[in-house]
Amino acid sequence: MLGAIEAGGTKFVCAVGDHLGHIADRIEISTTVPGETMKEVLAFFQKYSIDAIGIGSFGPIDINQESPSYGFITSTPKTAWKDFPFVQTVKEAFGVPIGFNTDVNAAALGEATLGAARGFDSCLYITVGTGIGAGAVVQGNLLQGLSHPEMGHILVRRHSEDSYKGTCPYHGDCLEGLAAGPALEERWGDKGFQLAERSEVWELEGYYLAQALMQYILILSPKKIILGGGVMKQKQVFPSIYKHMSDLVNGYVSLPELSEYIVSPGLGNDAGITGSLLLADQALGRELEGKR
Amino acid sequence: MLGAIEAGGTKFVCAVGDHLGHIADRIEISTTVPGETMKEVLAFFQKYSIDAIGIGSFGPIDINQESPSYGFITSTPKTAWKDFPFVQTVKEAFGVPIGFNTDVNAAALGEATLGAARGFDSCLYITVGTGIGAGAVVQGNLLQGLSHPEMGHILVRRHSEDSYKGTCPYHGDCLEGLAAGPALEERWGDKGFQLAERSEVWELEGYYLAQALMQYILILSPKKIILGGGVMKQKQVFPSIYKHMSDLVNGYVSLPELSEYIVSPGLGNDAGITGSLLLADQALGRELEGKR
Repeated sequence: MLGAIEAGGTKFVCAVGDHLGHIADRIEISTTVPGETMKEVLAFFQKYSIDAIGIGSFGPIDINQESPSYGFITSTPKTAWKDFPFVQTVKEAFGVPIGFNTDVNAAALGEATLGAARGFDSCLYITVGTGIGAGAVVQGNLLQGLSHPEMGHILVRRHSEDSYKGTCPYHGDCLEGLAAGPALEERWGDKGFQLAERSEVWELEGYYLAQALMQYILILSPKKIILGGGVMKQKQVFPSIYKHMSDLVNGYVSLPELSEYIVSPGLGNDAGITGSLLLADQALGRELEGKR
Repeated sequence: MLGAIEAGGTKFVCAVGDHLGHIADRIEISTTVPGETMKEVLAFFQKYSIDAIGIGSFGPIDINQESPSYGFITSTPKTAWKDFPFVQTVKEAFGVPIGFNTDVNAAALGEATLGAARGFDSCLYITVGTGIGAGAVVQGNLLQGLSHPEMGHILVRRHSEDSYKGTCPYHGDCLEGLAAGPALEERWGDKGFQLAERSEVWELEGYYLAQALMQYILILSPKKIILGGGVMKQKQVFPSIYKHMSDLVNGYVSLPELSEYIVSPGLGNDAGITGSLLLADQALGRELEGKR
């Protein structure tokens, strides 16, 4: 049996299941401090006979297996979790292979294998919620270089009528600073779902997200783009994204029909936890491969 | 013996050599119309016994092997070359395996294998010249998705004191529109090398290139970045890039020392032609693999 942890800033989802994404049991745990949260996480898995555990975590995290801090959450603003040795803690408790990647890379893997990008060897998964993050599958593998991508912090051009300063403590008005949930709430005075009827909100949100998608497409050329996260439940933003995308790209690259190219997650809210099961399966595969 | 064609908008470089990048003979041919240019190209290779030919071409090109127009130059503004069946023309003449990719992907492969990014499994090669283009090696493979990257056309934020409209026929003031050679010449009234002493030119150029590099880093996280092309021969732009990069990234991601991370090509002007030899070697390897 495979274990999966989707570690988010607000809650942890833990599940047991198989490599086809079937989930046999699951639990949600509030993200407080490592001592508390991890105690419940470990207790959940102790009920099962687990062969491997996959972790899709909020970040930044160190996923470079040659680094001394591999497996750690690194410079997060959630100070209780800064320098938390996530892989080591889980490995010590169960002694099984551990897969470790970002929550969004896990979701990209889930969607490419079993979701909206099934059958494609590349996809981009973007979450727009408390923050903005993205993971990517490129030629069948999770994108990794010097580190994992941090696509939520790319620069966008400010709309001439938008004077909102932006929430990002590092960059002010980067994409996350202007278009994540907290920016919507502070700019418009209400949470996203309470703003559903206000077309100007989604017009502007589409303006910023389309710019980001244009950059991602010109740089990565993904075969499918999946937009998840709380803000993207407001489906009325999609037409605004398509319209601004068409204007920006202006025919320079040829793209599939946008309503089929840029879509909601096929796995709904389970993209991340399903991908984490797949990370467990990959870790198990690597271990067996190594033993041959 | 391997053959290589670096097909540029102004000139074609043809070479014969080996998979270690040793070049035994080379020739430069003006890019006019396919009937003329290709006649000279084919004549050059006819002097040798060639096992495979690698082509690094200006674009856009179709590199999707399952596409009916695979091997074609597609929607180029150089109308004589539009819909030119490049791979088919060379294959018909010599009947050997043909490797085909963008000029910048070839250069990225050359630099990752034998140049400034040797020993790294990922790098980004950017050329800033008549246009701006980039190729990337990701986890050891040339980046390819729906199509090849078109990174030169990403959006940048205009400098508040720069009123130059931009040269790009598709996007106006995208990166290429504001920062390629023709934009420099039109904005400042002289070619790049004649502007060497004017610090404001390189200050502004660094401002735009640093924005682009920030986007590339946040999205792709390359292990090494190589800046080639005619404009980048003005080395005085590098300090401006480093300064603006530091300001923009603002400590959000941890990067190597910038002067070691963002560098000139290790292969000098030969990155593209060397990479094209490697494309030939890869094509030959695939053919032999297929025959086993």
